[in-house]
Amino acid sequence: MMRFSTLLKHPAGWMTGSDADSAVVLTSRIRLARNISGAPFPGWSRKIDRIQLMTSLREKVEALPEMKNAFSHELSDLTSVQKQVLVERHLISREQAARGSGSATVVNRNQTLSIMINEEDHLRLQSIRSGLHLKEAYDLISKVDGQLEKSVSFAFDQELGYLTACPTNLGTGLRASAMLHLPGLVISENINEVMNGIAKLGLAVRGIFGEGTESLGHLFQISNQSTLGESEQEIIERLDRVIRKVHHQELNARQKLLEDSPQALADKVSRSYGILSHAYLIDSKEALNHISLIRLASDMGFFPKKTIELCDELIMEIEPAHLQHSTDSKLSASQRDTIRAEIIRSRLQSIQSPDISLIKQYL
Amino acid sequence: MMRFSTLLKHPAGWMTGSDADSAVVLTSRIRLARNISGAPFPGWSRKIDRIQLMTSLREKVEALPEMKNAFSHELSDLTSVQKQVLVERHLISREQAARGSGSATVVNRNQTLSIMINEEDHLRLQSIRSGLHLKEAYDLISKVDGQLEKSVSFAFDQELGYLTACPTNLGTGLRASAMLHLPGLVISENINEVMNGIAKLGLAVRGIFGEGTESLGHLFQISNQSTLGESEQEIIERLDRVIRKVHHQELNARQKLLEDSPQALADKVSRSYGILSHAYLIDSKEALNHISLIRLASDMGFFPKKTIELCDELIMEIEPAHLQHSTDSKLSASQRDTIRAEIIRSRLQSIQSPDISLIKQYL
Repeated sequence: MMRFSTLLKHPAGWMTGSDADSAVVLTSRIRLARNISGAPFPGWSRKIDRIQLMTSLREKVEALPEMKNAFSHELSDLTSVQKQVLVERHLISREQAARGSGSATVVNRNQTLSIMINEEDHLRLQSIRSGLHLKEAYDLISKVDGQLEKSVSFAFDQELGYLTACPTNLGTGLRASAMLHLPGLVISENINEVMNGIAKLGLAVRGIFGEGTESLGHLFQISNQSTLGESEQEIIERLDRVIRKVHHQELNARQKLLEDSPQALADKVSRSYGILSHAYLIDSKEALNHISLIRLASDMGFFPKKTIELCDELIMEIEPAHLQHSTDSKLSASQRDTIRAEIIRSRLQSIQSPDISLIKQYL
Repeated sequence: MMRFSTLLKHPAGWMTGSDADSAVVLTSRIRLARNISGAPFPGWSRKIDRIQLMTSLREKVEALPEMKNAFSHELSDLTSVQKQVLVERHLISREQAARGSGSATVVNRNQTLSIMINEEDHLRLQSIRSGLHLKEAYDLISKVDGQLEKSVSFAFDQELGYLTACPTNLGTGLRASAMLHLPGLVISENINEVMNGIAKLGLAVRGIFGEGTESLGHLFQISNQSTLGESEQEIIERLDRVIRKVHHQELNARQKLLEDSPQALADKVSRSYGILSHAYLIDSKEALNHISLIRLASDMGFFPKKTIELCDELIMEIEPAHLQHSTDSKLSASQRDTIRAEIIRSRLQSIQSPDISLIKQYL
């Protein structure tokens, strides 16, 4: 079985995207909610029943071919920092992190499939991929779903579909989402218009990391709102179409920035590099926004392309729990800011100042 | 006679201070106002009379031993950019820069003595020195004053002293001032208290560069308010005492910053270096404030001591007219910001990132 330290040491499979899409669409995620027929939802069941169900489900999940040598833990076995690390890696939900005995999480070897047992529902299956690959992510989840269905009986209603603890998941039980990096639309101040358009299509948009809808690091998550009335394929295809359109709008915005204000763009990017490579104290919010600009600039050619991957790893590494995990003692905010700055400076040593020669043709 | 280009090429003598004081007290300046007995003040005289008086005074000023091979020009001979450069070098006043025919300025070879003819008064004698050397600056001015008095008759009243166009200069006609760099007091938020204390002693304090009392680059000028009722020696000694006290307070504030928040100080200093060495657009205000921190850090040991001199030269070089002078065409604000950033990046290439090891003992 995979140990926590092994999981931590390796970047998740979805973090090391190398296809062209992943510069804008970082990840695609599919999540299915499933419940066992005849058993009360976790929130309504007695602890002893929850533990019993977890034990039986965990065995079946661990037996899945995909889960060979998996990371499998009851939540009560993990420290709160470890749980928080899993949240930051998008492997468990905040809700699951709040649980203890009677809830478990099983994560496959390359951290692209995670199955939460006794979260809000008995089973939450999640597949996460680098780039825009909703269909592929769904195919894996669907396969796993089918495999599990052979050994357990899911709560299913002919008319309503899959039954879930919360009615917002009723029907397909499917939530499809993608995480997008949209600095071009933010800097050009077109983001609100684009987001409003998406909302009108019945999709949900939210900033990731930040409170409420605030977006840090120019990162946004777009997902389906409704789980009823559309088939899985329809949900995924519709989301895919919208995301391709936003992707296109983002690339247009980037090109326009280059054409309309090349000097200002070079200044912004180069300053971000200067600050990140020289700060000795930096909070999460500021760091994310500068890393975002380096990430943008890498895709545009100011830095070597591989810098995108470094940015994605950094975004994870500087999150509070990942930082906290690097030491035994509880860190104060200012200690976190110090360590965060240290990690960033050290990681940036491998890249040079931006090459701004590419703006010459636009000046 | 010295040409404008020669003057521009060489930093003024007062800019290249190398004594220990000049890290806090950049310059000491003495100015005397004098008028010719029987002639109307420049503001009240006819143009033809002004020109006649200027011609005769200019001959006498150029004949002073100190003024050998001097820079001597009627204001109408200078372009507005050239005049502005002289203002930025503190060699002429803004008032004098606004004048043309009938007013002249004579500056000695190493730009430490400047004599304005037909500014507000017939003669304004100014001596400027690096560091805290009010007495030495006064001695030179006093000598020159004595030499001139042999060939012209100054307007003098037994009771009132020297007569001047504006009553605020009546008496000694002396204005003594020093320019101080007080980032420690600003960052530690003690500056207002110190400034209020100085104001209560009847001295004037103002920020330099900046509108009104706003201080850019943490630079402040302290000067005497009254020219009546005290002898020249008393004025200078009092100002000298106060400045030594402020100097001491500034050093205390710096030490306290180092002891109380070494990490924050290192962060501030290093970020300023990172921004200045990576910006492609920077306005005067932001640049001055970052250069100020580099200057502070150089005195504290984060950079080699000689960096102070580089900072002082930069502070001058990035002023609008100095920038404008570097090209023939009229620069837009954004072009100035581009050239300013270029000059700073190029000058900073000679210094490395700050050495922050010195904060270790305070952590």
